[in-house]
Amino acid sequence: MDTVSLIRKKRDGHELSTEEIRFLVEGFSAGEIPDYQMSSFAMAIFFKGMTDRETADLTMAMVESGEQVDLSKINGIKVDKHSTGGVGDTTTLTLVPLVAAAGVPVAKLSGRGLGHTGGTIDKLDAIQGFSTELDIEEFIQLVNNSKVAVVGQTANLTPADKKLYALRDVTGTVDSIPLIASSIMSKKIASGADAIVLDVKTGDGAFMKEEADAIKLAEAMVAIGKQVGRKTIAVISDMSQPLGYAIGNAVEVKEAIDTLKGEGPEDLHELGLVLGSQMLILAGRAKTTEEARSLLEGVVKDGSALAKFREFIKGQHGNAEIVDQPELLPQPAEKIQVLAEKSGFVQRILAEEVGLCAMKLGAGRETKDDVIDYAVGIVLHKKVGDSVSDKETIATLYVNEKENLDEVMSRLHQAIQIGSEKVQTSALIRCIITEDGVQKI
Amino acid sequence: MDTVSLIRKKRDGHELSTEEIRFLVEGFSAGEIPDYQMSSFAMAIFFKGMTDRETADLTMAMVESGEQVDLSKINGIKVDKHSTGGVGDTTTLTLVPLVAAAGVPVAKLSGRGLGHTGGTIDKLDAIQGFSTELDIEEFIQLVNNSKVAVVGQTANLTPADKKLYALRDVTGTVDSIPLIASSIMSKKIASGADAIVLDVKTGDGAFMKEEADAIKLAEAMVAIGKQVGRKTIAVISDMSQPLGYAIGNAVEVKEAIDTLKGEGPEDLHELGLVLGSQMLILAGRAKTTEEARSLLEGVVKDGSALAKFREFIKGQHGNAEIVDQPELLPQPAEKIQVLAEKSGFVQRILAEEVGLCAMKLGAGRETKDDVIDYAVGIVLHKKVGDSVSDKETIATLYVNEKENLDEVMSRLHQAIQIGSEKVQTSALIRCIITEDGVQKI
Repeated sequence: MDTVSLIRKKRDGHELSTEEIRFLVEGFSAGEIPDYQMSSFAMAIFFKGMTDRETADLTMAMVESGEQVDLSKINGIKVDKHSTGGVGDTTTLTLVPLVAAAGVPVAKLSGRGLGHTGGTIDKLDAIQGFSTELDIEEFIQLVNNSKVAVVGQTANLTPADKKLYALRDVTGTVDSIPLIASSIMSKKIASGADAIVLDVKTGDGAFMKEEADAIKLAEAMVAIGKQVGRKTIAVISDMSQPLGYAIGNAVEVKEAIDTLKGEGPEDLHELGLVLGSQMLILAGRAKTTEEARSLLEGVVKDGSALAKFREFIKGQHGNAEIVDQPELLPQPAEKIQVLAEKSGFVQRILAEEVGLCAMKLGAGRETKDDVIDYAVGIVLHKKVGDSVSDKETIATLYVNEKENLDEVMSRLHQAIQIGSEKVQTSALIRCIITEDGVQKI
Repeated sequence: MDTVSLIRKKRDGHELSTEEIRFLVEGFSAGEIPDYQMSSFAMAIFFKGMTDRETADLTMAMVESGEQVDLSKINGIKVDKHSTGGVGDTTTLTLVPLVAAAGVPVAKLSGRGLGHTGGTIDKLDAIQGFSTELDIEEFIQLVNNSKVAVVGQTANLTPADKKLYALRDVTGTVDSIPLIASSIMSKKIASGADAIVLDVKTGDGAFMKEEADAIKLAEAMVAIGKQVGRKTIAVISDMSQPLGYAIGNAVEVKEAIDTLKGEGPEDLHELGLVLGSQMLILAGRAKTTEEARSLLEGVVKDGSALAKFREFIKGQHGNAEIVDQPELLPQPAEKIQVLAEKSGFVQRILAEEVGLCAMKLGAGRETKDDVIDYAVGIVLHKKVGDSVSDKETIATLYVNEKENLDEVMSRLHQAIQIGSEKVQTSALIRCIITEDGVQKI
């Protein structure tokens, strides 16, 4: 096999064999196939796509390029969840205790964030004492004892994917469905998931701005799951405005606590129930979404979801008192009100821009060496469609450093658009993609 | 400007500005833009093409990446000729003295060959004493005195093109019309041509197998010429069988001599007249093709073309006696007849395969370090459409080393296909492409 012929084969629209894809990924991973060949190959994939079989082969070749987490010592079906990333996305923090409280083991490897706000690991680090650096035995024991543990990725998972992603980032080949799908799925599979629930966001604050693209990505990932024997379901959810009200780290932990009490934002609560239901079904804990939803609503109502959050924090050496005294979470030097400049209705909240404002306050990382300030962030007071009076508080800024404050203030006013018409809000859940196709909700 | 945005701009089908193309070529040439970005950019060009303006900008950016030959001290309009490469292509050797004899200055920079047989420089090296390494003053003086000189490229011409070509070769991005066109034209322009006649081959032995592709390439090059103010005309000519009868180095010099005497193969003679006529017109030596053709036929008939070849060889320190005693050219140890295995008509002569056979005998280079044996090669005795008797000689092999002989013999029998039907031969000259469009002949 020679690399140039394989690049040309893909370029000319032909299907590569399993062996050919393995040859390319292994050679690239080993440094035998240089970056300049892999980048032109990636560009050829951008234009010509990949069949489901090719995409699954690419995924498994990347899985096999590194270590794989063995979760076989955990009883039951291990269901993982992945959100494609958005703004104010507190989903994981909410979902992990919720699903565990319903009796489904959650053994989650998670990442730090690069972008608007921290990733799940960063948000957990906002809890005093919380350790996400457990060894694998302790991790498995925790899940077997209390159904839940979340750790950072320390193992050398999918190095071929890491290397390819870094290359795609600098060669204009990020936006390719088979490449995105295989990248996400390879990480989930290498992390030991038996089944996977995907939360694919769409809208201004999401990677996939258009719903049609989000559906295509979801279909590609569900197809990979089918090919490689990991049952996969995808939920397409709205990210045209930030999810919930909080954008930051400590503020999102607080919002997750509220949600687990049944007192959180309606959209975050609902998305948790929808994703959680799919997880319960894949784990064999419920037969129908109605049954699953009722189970999850039960654990919120009877306090066991919140209790599970306490247990989860304690298990990982964190201060669980924050659940009942959220003021123990990192607090900013100052909370500054953002006031409406006119009356009317919220027309749009530009999610990506709000996320960038939070990053400017210190809640996220612009480069991987940036240090996150857990205390800072933004808490919105309005959702799209809400009525607003002139001078009413539309957001609160949690601030330590004031150097970007004027810029943030001005950008946030632009991002929260107020007009005279009462607008329709976008549906939170757009559809669910399974092996059988698209199901409208 | 940042490189990733420009790759994405091209990828998404937008036109790049002059400054953007210059930024990319200069950055790549300076080593600031890495290979992996340039290769994905080249693949994006493969899929999305370039406008005439972009292609001309790319050409000039490559011209300006290195030295440019200044031919302004040569009187008259300097017309260069470029053939896109074929098998048994003795065109340049024939054309250079022919056009010079008609009074048009030919100041040609030429290359060594990688492939079936040597390039023009290699063929001239087959003449004892011939030097292609003249300094620029001697080169210009020769052209002013005797209208003709051919030297190897010693100056650092179009380094960006050389670097990009090497990268395209290993990244599956060779077959792109704007990239091929700009590569060829940049070299001609940097070599100092005022006007350019292109001989674009089509058919089995050519780079462009399909006539439609050859026309597209020709149109792209003529468009570049128009954009950058170098009048350019392209002739689409047949390479479905080898041109002339000889494939090698010394054998092709001998064939050129025969052609200059008016005793050469019909196709080589005709192509020389057609290309030469275009050169005379561009140089202002003739007003119409009829006038030009008659001039060229005249210099063959009255012996001045042959005399010019002697003068050309002498001027560059070669042994001009070979013109009258071709047996002084390098001779092989053995000449081996290839006999027809049946009677009939020649159906096809697979040009590329015949070329590869000549290379196997030692007439060409497989890698750039291979040493050419000037004496060896193949002389065909038949053209497509000719009748053949069983056991009649269809080719003569000029052989020194016999190690590949059996293979060559067997492949040559496969390449010269004999059948019972008398087939139509392809037209030698397909059409001429000028700024005004395609002219059928």
